[in-house]
Amino acid sequence: MKKTALIMAGGRGERFWPKSRKSLPKQFLSLTDDGRTMIQLTVERIRPLMDLEDIYISTNRAYRGLVMEQLPGIPPENILCEPVGRNTAPCIGLGAVHMAKKYEDALMMVLPSDHLIKYNQMFLNALKDGCGIAQKGKNLVTIGITPDYPETGYGYIKFRPQEADGNAYAVDRFVEKPDVETAKEYLETEEYLWNSGMFIWKVSTILDNMKSMLPDMYDGLFKIAEAIGTDKQEMVLEKVFPELESVSIDYGIMEKAQNIYILPGVFGWDDVGSWLAVERIQKSNERGNVVTGNIITINSKNNIIQGGKKLIAAVGLENLIIVDTEDATLICDKGSTPDIKMVLENLKICNREEYL
Amino acid sequence: MKKTALIMAGGRGERFWPKSRKSLPKQFLSLTDDGRTMIQLTVERIRPLMDLEDIYISTNRAYRGLVMEQLPGIPPENILCEPVGRNTAPCIGLGAVHMAKKYEDALMMVLPSDHLIKYNQMFLNALKDGCGIAQKGKNLVTIGITPDYPETGYGYIKFRPQEADGNAYAVDRFVEKPDVETAKEYLETEEYLWNSGMFIWKVSTILDNMKSMLPDMYDGLFKIAEAIGTDKQEMVLEKVFPELESVSIDYGIMEKAQNIYILPGVFGWDDVGSWLAVERIQKSNERGNVVTGNIITINSKNNIIQGGKKLIAAVGLENLIIVDTEDATLICDKGSTPDIKMVLENLKICNREEYL
Repeated sequence: MKKTALIMAGGRGERFWPKSRKSLPKQFLSLTDDGRTMIQLTVERIRPLMDLEDIYISTNRAYRGLVMEQLPGIPPENILCEPVGRNTAPCIGLGAVHMAKKYEDALMMVLPSDHLIKYNQMFLNALKDGCGIAQKGKNLVTIGITPDYPETGYGYIKFRPQEADGNAYAVDRFVEKPDVETAKEYLETEEYLWNSGMFIWKVSTILDNMKSMLPDMYDGLFKIAEAIGTDKQEMVLEKVFPELESVSIDYGIMEKAQNIYILPGVFGWDDVGSWLAVERIQKSNERGNVVTGNIITINSKNNIIQGGKKLIAAVGLENLIIVDTEDATLICDKGSTPDIKMVLENLKICNREEYL
Repeated sequence: MKKTALIMAGGRGERFWPKSRKSLPKQFLSLTDDGRTMIQLTVERIRPLMDLEDIYISTNRAYRGLVMEQLPGIPPENILCEPVGRNTAPCIGLGAVHMAKKYEDALMMVLPSDHLIKYNQMFLNALKDGCGIAQKGKNLVTIGITPDYPETGYGYIKFRPQEADGNAYAVDRFVEKPDVETAKEYLETEEYLWNSGMFIWKVSTILDNMKSMLPDMYDGLFKIAEAIGTDKQEMVLEKVFPELESVSIDYGIMEKAQNIYILPGVFGWDDVGSWLAVERIQKSNERGNVVTGNIITINSKNNIIQGGKKLIAAVGLENLIIVDTEDATLICDKGSTPDIKMVLENLKICNREEYL
C-alpha cells in the first residue's frame, strides 16, 4: 500500500525564544551542529520510505514561504496551510482528506516536525512495523517512547503486555501528564510508554473514526475535500476550517477508539522541548559548557551559550542558558526555563510585537 | 594663593569592560543616572574653587579628543598629554612644571578623574582646609577616607591623633594594601584612613620634594619645562618623558617625605572600582535589581543589568552583572568581578584588538 506522511509544522515553539519567533518557529531552526533545520531533518529521515511527492506538510499560512524555502522538493500543493490553528484533530483530518483525494486510500504516518531522532534505521524499522499493523483491518498505531525517567511533561500510554502483535502491543488507555509520584509508578510497572504524538493508520481508518467520533468535523472536512482542486478550494477552507472544533487527536479519537496498537520506540528520541535539550544534542567542552558562536568562558561551567558574531564573555557562571540574537538576549537559569513564557506574556501585554 | 587642580585622566579602567575600552575608558563614561561622565562630574565639583583655566587635565595622547569634547571649557594648553604612561609621580611632576611656568607658585590639588563624591559641599570644605594647611611652610596634604569596612583593595594611611592642625592630622606612614586581618586591626585602632589618591600642596613644595627624592626625574621635568611655549615643546616631551622613572607619587615621595598632613574625608566617596559600584550609585528596584535600558526581569533579584536598545530578558537570575554593548556582552557573577581581567588577557593573547 502507498506510504504517505503528514508532517505537522504549525507550532510556535515559544520555549525557544528568542531564537524562535512568531515569524520563525522552532521547526524552522537548526538546533544541531550540522546546520539542517528540524523540519529538514524530519523529511530526510523518512525519505527512504517514500518520495517527496508523498510527503505533506501541515502548517500555518504564515509559514508557507519558510516551508517552500527549506523544503524545495515538496510539491506546493502538499503544503497544507491552516487559516487558523485548530489543534491536531482538524490538522490530521485536513491531511487525510487531501490524501484520500489523491490516492483514494494510503498508509498515513503522522509526524511532528520538531523532534530529533538519533538512530534513524531503528526509527525506520518502527515505522515499517507500524505500517504492517496499520494495514490490517482498522488498526490505529502509535509509536511510544520507552521512558528513561519519570517525566511529568508528557502524556503516557498504557499497553497490555500480554496482547502483542509482532513488536506492537494493544493499547489499554491514554493518560494525561502525571505528577511525579504517578510517573514513578508508571515506570515501575513497565507497562507505560511516553506519548510521542507519532501515528500510523490508513487514511480510510482515521476518516472512519472521525466520522463516528467527531461527525461535525468529518462533515466540515468533507466540504473542504469536495473543493480541493477547484477554484473554490481556498475560499471553502477559509470558511469551514475555522469552524471546526479545536480538539486534539488524542482526546477526540485515541482515548475513545478501539483497535489501537503501540510500538515501543527505542531510537534516541528527543522532543527538544526547551533550551535544556541543547546540551543533550550538542557536544559540550571539558567544563560542561555547550557553546556556539563568539564566546569566551572564564571559570564557568555547565552553561548553554548560543551566540553569533557578537562577543559574549561568561565569567564565573554556572547552569545558565544564554541565547543571543540580533535584537534580544535571553539569560535564564537552567531551573527557570518554564518561566521563559512569562517573558513572552510580558511582551504581549506591552504590545511589543517586534519581539514575539 | 592661586588655586589650581590637576585631574589625572590617563587610566584604562579595564574593570569596566566591555563599556570601557582602550578608546573610551571609565573616566569618559557616565555611570550615574544623570548622564554626565565621571570626568565632567570631577570638573564641575571643583568649579566653585577655581576657574576652568586653572584646571589641568593629565591624560594619554589618545584621549585628547575625548577631553576636548567632554570638557570644552578647559584651555587646550591645559590638556597635558603623556606620550606614554609613567605612573603618578611623572604625571604630577609634569602638571607641576606647567603650573610653575604659568603661575610661578600656586596651590595644586591633585584629583583622580574617575571617583564619585556624594556630598559636594563637605568635599569642598575638605579641599579648603587642605589649602590652608598646604600654604604653611612645605606641608604635603592628602585627603584620607574614613573606612567603612576592612577593604583589602586600598592602601591605608596611619595618622597621629595627638598631632592635629585644625581638622588635619600629621601622617605617621603610608601602608600598602593589607590582608583582611590586618585591615580589621587598622579599623579597630581608628588611626588609619583609606588612601584616596587626592593631594594638595604648593607647586614649589612638590617640586622641592622631587628635587631631593627623585633628582633624575626632576632634571627631566626641568628640561621639559624649559621647552614649554617654544616650538620644541612637543619634541622635548616626546624624548624626555618616556625616560622618566615609572613610579607612583606614594612610593617615590609620600612614603619618605616629612611634613605630611591628612584630612579625614567624610563626603560619600566612592572610587567606582568595579561594576559592583553601580548598585551603590544607582537606584535599585524592589527586587534589588539595578537596571538600565530595555530590560525584562522575571523572578530575578539583586542583579546589575546595563543594557541599551537591545532587549535583555533575565529569567531566574541572582547576583549577576550583565553589561551589553554594541559588539560585546559581559555576563559575570558578582563574586567574579576580578576575573574580568582574564577576559581582556584572553582577547590580548588572541590579538582581538577590536574588543579591547
